[in-house]
Amino acid sequence: MNSLETLRWIGGVDGHLQMIDQTLLPVEFVEIDCRDVEAVWEAIKMLRVRGAPAIGISAAYGVMVGLQTAAGKDEAAFFGRLEEVTEYLASSRPTAVNLFWALERMKRRAEQLRGTPPAEIAEALLAEAREIHEEDKRMCREIGRYGAELLGDGQGVLTHCNAGGLATADYGTALAVFFAAAESGKQLHVYADETRPLLQGARLTSWELQRRGIDVTLICDSMAAQVMREGRIQAVVTGADRIAANGDVANKIGTYGVALLAAAHEIPFYVAAPTSTFDMSLQSGTEIPIEQRDPKEITHGFGRQTAPDGIDVYNPAFDVTPAELIRAIICERGVIRPVNTQRVLEVVTHE
Amino acid sequence: MNSLETLRWIGGVDGHLQMIDQTLLPVEFVEIDCRDVEAVWEAIKMLRVRGAPAIGISAAYGVMVGLQTAAGKDEAAFFGRLEEVTEYLASSRPTAVNLFWALERMKRRAEQLRGTPPAEIAEALLAEAREIHEEDKRMCREIGRYGAELLGDGQGVLTHCNAGGLATADYGTALAVFFAAAESGKQLHVYADETRPLLQGARLTSWELQRRGIDVTLICDSMAAQVMREGRIQAVVTGADRIAANGDVANKIGTYGVALLAAAHEIPFYVAAPTSTFDMSLQSGTEIPIEQRDPKEITHGFGRQTAPDGIDVYNPAFDVTPAELIRAIICERGVIRPVNTQRVLEVVTHE
Repeated sequence: MNSLETLRWIGGVDGHLQMIDQTLLPVEFVEIDCRDVEAVWEAIKMLRVRGAPAIGISAAYGVMVGLQTAAGKDEAAFFGRLEEVTEYLASSRPTAVNLFWALERMKRRAEQLRGTPPAEIAEALLAEAREIHEEDKRMCREIGRYGAELLGDGQGVLTHCNAGGLATADYGTALAVFFAAAESGKQLHVYADETRPLLQGARLTSWELQRRGIDVTLICDSMAAQVMREGRIQAVVTGADRIAANGDVANKIGTYGVALLAAAHEIPFYVAAPTSTFDMSLQSGTEIPIEQRDPKEITHGFGRQTAPDGIDVYNPAFDVTPAELIRAIICERGVIRPVNTQRVLEVVTHE
Repeated sequence: MNSLETLRWIGGVDGHLQMIDQTLLPVEFVEIDCRDVEAVWEAIKMLRVRGAPAIGISAAYGVMVGLQTAAGKDEAAFFGRLEEVTEYLASSRPTAVNLFWALERMKRRAEQLRGTPPAEIAEALLAEAREIHEEDKRMCREIGRYGAELLGDGQGVLTHCNAGGLATADYGTALAVFFAAAESGKQLHVYADETRPLLQGARLTSWELQRRGIDVTLICDSMAAQVMREGRIQAVVTGADRIAANGDVANKIGTYGVALLAAAHEIPFYVAAPTSTFDMSLQSGTEIPIEQRDPKEITHGFGRQTAPDGIDVYNPAFDVTPAELIRAIICERGVIRPVNTQRVLEVVTHE
């Protein structure tokens, strides 16, 4: 399997962060080097790196880059700089939960080591950032391992949006299932929905699969039903943005439609997501508010106006797929099947 | 209702053809004047006018424009020019069946009048072109009238692609139903699928509805299921490219998926199409070959590359919706319901 690392740390405590500039995909593949905290901030802000896990990991490494000027100073200066750097990084994408989570975790680790020489704290923080990175990799691999068992050799599978390695440290979630299946010797043919309005499927998913040597065919969202009808699809696997306690899944707009089409063709519909995606405070998906996005994503999608001036637009960011349409939810702790509150509780709260 | 004429003949036998330049929609509304046959040829060739009925009518008027230089000549010169003009116009879009049909009809009418002075033949040909135009208008109005009875005041309706006035002389087919319902005082709210890859819904349908003062909201194809789930849709109406004897409908890719989604939400799915759309030589939709279109429509759809180089693409032009998913087919001779071979035969072959 061809290598594809969303981001990597180069060197030791005085090293730097290297990442794929995702804004140039799929036309150009360029890796950028972030040697100061401003460069990391800019990369997160400008979506050069996106996806909750990948943003969190970038922020953790961003703290390291930012601390390099303070590593030789005294404790007060070191913690002062740490505060400055984390506050600054937090302002890059104020709605990204994983960003704050990672920054808080780095600060907590530093606090635990107050009294230790700053150079040693810096070493411990690099270890913490690497651990955040590794945890995410392990999560991807585990999801892949559990999910791959659900797919058979020679199957056609369909996915929607991008739940791939580019959003995480490594293999992603839905795509991890395909990568792990391929590694175990199963030949798959993946159909990737282009995923309007932002075309994550066309721009990212098809690129990742192609780059890793997996057979992939790009289709428009409106073609999924036809591809299913032609017998080309034996399973659907998507990611998830948020999952309620009963297993209802909020994910990229269009996911619910794909789940209905799969049901009509008696094709199993799977969701792959880490347990951190579950929000056990929500009893069901009806409690999830649906965000409306900028109409321009639809009317001026790709640098050109394709709809009349002043047209009314409905642009929900995601939809909710009810648990009864989901054959199984694959997470790093195992497979939730059947999808219901009891089974979700068993797997998600199991340590 | 605001006026919207796809094309019109200005003046008498020495008049000219005026049409909306559809290539500039939805950003600009420009009407062009075709004063010689080359201008008509260019308009058909460059898709300034598109849609089978509208192309046929344009070609008939194109013959008139082309004959003006021969109207004062002798019979041999007149028929020589007629042959030249029809052959030339036929080369504008060699796959458009309605183009040949209209040109043949004009030639046949002229042949019937051999021996009459050319100036009188020219008058008769203008009457013939106007009749082709009027027949299409009547067809649209009849479809609208029958279809409007199926919709209730205050309903939300969804349509896919463009089966509107721009493709015909007047009201279109699916959109005729909405226009007629509005004229009869019913307030509708139309949701228009943008219809990837070529965005006819965004570019044409939403423009036509907006211009005629009908409430319309543009959505991506992937949002239809969500809009249905939210209870916003009480009926779906689409057009058809070709209908088999059993009522299976070939139409723009995505139609079959919409029909499945409608079924899952218990929403009636209607097809509006003239009887000329029926191909009674086909027993069922399985006999309809599905054309594959240029991958670039998907990978370079908006003037910008949005998918990786060398990616495999599946781009079927249309799909087939089985009769059992269709509540009724609305044509100019009445409503086919239930949709089956016997009922199709009754309505379509009834004169």
